[in-house]
Amino acid sequence: MKDIYELVSQLKFDDKGLLTAVAQDYKTGEILMLAHMNEESFRKSVETGEAVYWSRSRKKLWHKGEESGNVQKIKELLIDCDGDAIVMKIEQVGDAACHTGNRSCFYRKLENGALVDIGVRVFDPDKVYKKS
Amino acid sequence: MKDIYELVSQLKFDDKGLLTAVAQDYKTGEILMLAHMNEESFRKSVETGEAVYWSRSRKKLWHKGEESGNVQKIKELLIDCDGDAIVMKIEQVGDAACHTGNRSCFYRKLENGALVDIGVRVFDPDKVYKKS
Repeated sequence: MKDIYELVSQLKFDDKGLLTAVAQDYKTGEILMLAHMNEESFRKSVETGEAVYWSRSRKKLWHKGEESGNVQKIKELLIDCDGDAIVMKIEQVGDAACHTGNRSCFYRKLENGALVDIGVRVFDPDKVYKKS
Repeated sequence: MKDIYELVSQLKFDDKGLLTAVAQDYKTGEILMLAHMNEESFRKSVETGEAVYWSRSRKKLWHKGEESGNVQKIKELLIDCDGDAIVMKIEQVGDAACHTGNRSCFYRKLENGALVDIGVRVFDPDKVYKKS
């Protein structure tokens, strides 16, 4: 990876220092999750080829899959017109991106004004995440 | 649409009162753009069936396509696990979502550390947007 800093300089981080990142299944096109990256997590994602986010709730770098094993291997990385959002086409190891055990975080669909669960449950979160 | 306010109450708007919204081509799965919605724009999107965003730069409601004619007809609306992001599967009228005239805002791809233009140019923005 040559000159990651020149690349980073073309991005527009918001007033909290974050980009929006969308993870999309590289084969099916299904949108699996949406999260955020600060500059360091963007650099680590590019350098390692695996999605590393910034957890806004835990306020720390979040190598996706670090606990569940469900890492996201980046196959393609796209940047939008104004440089504040990226799309990663990824291979989702373990087939589930969502901490709820669903394949996609977008597992609720609006139907006649109500949210309907259309999720594909891949794992039981109680068995995957250790209790603290 | 029954009880849009009950639906809205299940969403989590951020400290600026915004959700993140991703527009995805309902046929091809291509991600066309990413923008934001406040509560009013979310309600209008659901009620009218066309994407209405909140323009953070212009600080006003932004009925996508109001000037270019390239409205987005919502075919399906999905909400993520924590209720702060939505995916709209849309029909993109005019075939272009991006103000640059590209089909998708994500028209730059990372290749060997550099951004490469892979965009499909649909229109010439100078001809579509009136000069102010």
